[in-house]
Amino acid sequence: MAVARQQDVGYDYVSDQAAASQWLSSLTPTPLPPPLTVESINPKVIKCEYAVRGAIAIRAQVLQQQLIADPGSLPFDEVVQCNIGNPQGLNQKPITYFREVVSLCDHPDLLGKPQVHELFSADAIRRAHRIIDCLTGRSTGAYSDSQGVKACREDVAAGISARDGFPASPDDIFLTDGASPGVHMVMQLLLRSEKDGILCPIPQYPLYSASIALHGGTLVPYYLDEESQWGLEITELKQQLHTARSAGINVRALVVINPGNPTGQVLSEENQRRVLQFVRDEGLILLADEVYQENIYEAGKKFHSFKKVSRAMGIGEKDLALISYHSISKGYYGECGRRGGYMEVTGFSKEVREQMLKLASVNLCSNVSGQILMSLVMKPPKAGEESYENFIKERDGILSSLARRAKVLTEGMNKLEGVTCNKAEGAMYVFPRLRFPEKVLKVAAAAKVAPDLFYTQRLLEATGIVMVPGSGFRQVPGTWHVRCTILPSEDKLPGVISRLSTFHQKFMDEFRD
Amino acid sequence: MAVARQQDVGYDYVSDQAAASQWLSSLTPTPLPPPLTVESINPKVIKCEYAVRGAIAIRAQVLQQQLIADPGSLPFDEVVQCNIGNPQGLNQKPITYFREVVSLCDHPDLLGKPQVHELFSADAIRRAHRIIDCLTGRSTGAYSDSQGVKACREDVAAGISARDGFPASPDDIFLTDGASPGVHMVMQLLLRSEKDGILCPIPQYPLYSASIALHGGTLVPYYLDEESQWGLEITELKQQLHTARSAGINVRALVVINPGNPTGQVLSEENQRRVLQFVRDEGLILLADEVYQENIYEAGKKFHSFKKVSRAMGIGEKDLALISYHSISKGYYGECGRRGGYMEVTGFSKEVREQMLKLASVNLCSNVSGQILMSLVMKPPKAGEESYENFIKERDGILSSLARRAKVLTEGMNKLEGVTCNKAEGAMYVFPRLRFPEKVLKVAAAAKVAPDLFYTQRLLEATGIVMVPGSGFRQVPGTWHVRCTILPSEDKLPGVISRLSTFHQKFMDEFRD
Repeated sequence: MAVARQQDVGYDYVSDQAAASQWLSSLTPTPLPPPLTVESINPKVIKCEYAVRGAIAIRAQVLQQQLIADPGSLPFDEVVQCNIGNPQGLNQKPITYFREVVSLCDHPDLLGKPQVHELFSADAIRRAHRIIDCLTGRSTGAYSDSQGVKACREDVAAGISARDGFPASPDDIFLTDGASPGVHMVMQLLLRSEKDGILCPIPQYPLYSASIALHGGTLVPYYLDEESQWGLEITELKQQLHTARSAGINVRALVVINPGNPTGQVLSEENQRRVLQFVRDEGLILLADEVYQENIYEAGKKFHSFKKVSRAMGIGEKDLALISYHSISKGYYGECGRRGGYMEVTGFSKEVREQMLKLASVNLCSNVSGQILMSLVMKPPKAGEESYENFIKERDGILSSLARRAKVLTEGMNKLEGVTCNKAEGAMYVFPRLRFPEKVLKVAAAAKVAPDLFYTQRLLEATGIVMVPGSGFRQVPGTWHVRCTILPSEDKLPGVISRLSTFHQKFMDEFRD
Repeated sequence: MAVARQQDVGYDYVSDQAAASQWLSSLTPTPLPPPLTVESINPKVIKCEYAVRGAIAIRAQVLQQQLIADPGSLPFDEVVQCNIGNPQGLNQKPITYFREVVSLCDHPDLLGKPQVHELFSADAIRRAHRIIDCLTGRSTGAYSDSQGVKACREDVAAGISARDGFPASPDDIFLTDGASPGVHMVMQLLLRSEKDGILCPIPQYPLYSASIALHGGTLVPYYLDEESQWGLEITELKQQLHTARSAGINVRALVVINPGNPTGQVLSEENQRRVLQFVRDEGLILLADEVYQENIYEAGKKFHSFKKVSRAMGIGEKDLALISYHSISKGYYGECGRRGGYMEVTGFSKEVREQMLKLASVNLCSNVSGQILMSLVMKPPKAGEESYENFIKERDGILSSLARRAKVLTEGMNKLEGVTCNKAEGAMYVFPRLRFPEKVLKVAAAAKVAPDLFYTQRLLEATGIVMVPGSGFRQVPGTWHVRCTILPSEDKLPGVISRLSTFHQKFMDEFRD
């Protein structure tokens, strides 16, 4: 019989159609499944969320493209990115001196041209010479030490010493591509399994929840008290630590974001002392996110680094494991796209620091141009230098404008029905609480989205204004917030507030119970 | 009794010395253990090794500092870093056009000055204008899309299309801070536990072993055949895959480094076709490390991207999950410190790509200046443009010099007693095999170091030349190698070879059986 002969010859002699089909499919290899599907991805990746660049931000990009392709097709003329702290993205100008130095370091041939003195300030030229002299191979194109260019770390350490009045060492500085890689590195060191926990503020900047999820640890929440200007209560820390420990979680570190993101509060020195006492009593590492240290708007408020407060309390290096994060992305400089940052690592053993250096070395080094910018931020022009006056003018212009915008936006938010908004004492955001009518909760539930996400979706579609729903930062269950940056320029901010107010009123009217 | 009263009052009334001491120590809190020790670090971090920046490199730094502090104190005048592919660190000059564009993008005020035309070439000025027009907020200081600036991705895709003769899409390009973060990202996606494996060449660039260790997966080795110019044999791939699968390892991807690092071989197109057939048959992802694609020195050898070879075979996008890595750190440009790179991601589902984009977004974006450089590398000046002639002169000058140095160094190595060295057909290294006398193995064993590490330690202390022991890249057990870059300049290379030869002869004489 023909079919029986298939195994001998593998072709022809097939008399019946079904057998032919069966035979053909036995010859065609079953297509292999795709080697990677969402089901076979590392589940830690799936678990990780990052709302600042989530669904709303992606939709905003689509709308922006649509406005370019078909300008009249939407009920607004432009998309206003209030979702992310990206000052130069909203047309803040970079600090001239910083860019002069970086530009000269990038193209040192300029330093040999007579015209350089017409185009660049004398102190920028001197600074560029000094930096280039200290680079491996005298070039920003060579890998640096994995911790960063020694001369840049010296400038950073000098800046910290000047800020705090306590010594800082270049050996304690790791220069990084923004603050985020430094946070990831420390999470990688600390988190061995989901039994390892990190105390994080809620609301928090989602870098922390994302990084903890990616490295397979547990986020142990502590809630900031919205009623008392997002206060950080030690009783709350103790209670959450106790609860986590009772559940078998080995809590390894406490994250404090000061000034707060998204919450904008600035901690008092007294509060910081109590936090330090707590981490000392409990044997925790303190991870101090201090990237908004230059962004203080509220009269009477002042930034104090945790390192300074601890040293002033008499806590020596050996008595406190502390990592302070800073970045070139915020402050008055706002150099987000340049990716520069540092972590100052104190109170760890030599052996642990060797492991940190090894981790840094796996990525070779952070970008040298970002390292240079970080050193400039920490050691800007001094009184008497040629750029000083212009530098101060640019810096103070930006900071005083940010302070005005923080105030205007807070006031605007507080005028909205059902909205209460704490002051942005610092950082770059307001984080108002929204009280929605019941009907909003029902409609959102039906659409399977959080009510604050629903609100920001509607806001975006109606006005082009992009905000991040509070659920992306976590919040007290049953409360709803949005995060909105204070970064639209002063000529645009009134328009933003006006469009927001009109939208908000219509939204509330539509869903009123 | 006094002691009994401690619990009431906590002080005083202690009459006997032992009881007093006991009481005091009960009041002094036991000092808490340090919150982080090597024992309590994530063991994956401890397991990770990165020899390129390991013990030898750290010792070299110390010697370099000593030479500065006390110039006559060592038997050599300078430390020569042959351990790492860092061309500008050994004084290779950057490509002028690239730095002109980057410098203008860094400080766009220059574009408004009349002198700019005296200092910068006309096409660099045009290119800078075009790039700045495409940046968010018209600034390198703004965050870009997480995948990278669209216009830069367009230039990269155009460069790939021109290179391969097959289309490439900007949507498939992820711009990264060098190739390393892209490798980490994919390992993070793929590795769920030690049951997930990645096929890697041995010897390999230790980024792969480090990243697999950090993400908790298993490195499945396949051995390159030193006898046949580090040949990549499909039978070896099949056998290792089979062995791993029999041991319960879910092998997810194959890493191929072409041109090879540290081995320098350039794969033939025929060999690549067989590799592609293998990954297709076995349902694997192909991770193609193609960062040395411009570094081909051997006449008759040519770089073919795996994407091009696959498309030429008729394998469509849907039939092959392929990630190609590139970087600005190597080639003729050698812009290591600028941290730029891309991965071209093809053949993955929309859902998987969304997860990749999410991971990219957690770090916001790669540094924009590095993104710009990557776009310049993939789309350099064209014939007829003002910079073209100088660009070609600089490019060809560097590449032909590297080819000469590869030849000279290979010949020098092959003259050493007990040393055989394959040609460096491409990349930036020679990886000679060293046959040591028995006595070396004994002395090294007594010192608890691998014999090739022992050799590089002695070499460094005697000559200041820094090489990486083969054990840092893994090798066939019982064989010993060193990796040495071809990067010392042509005026210095003869001296390096001469010092190496003298050292080597003395070393062999000392340990001769």
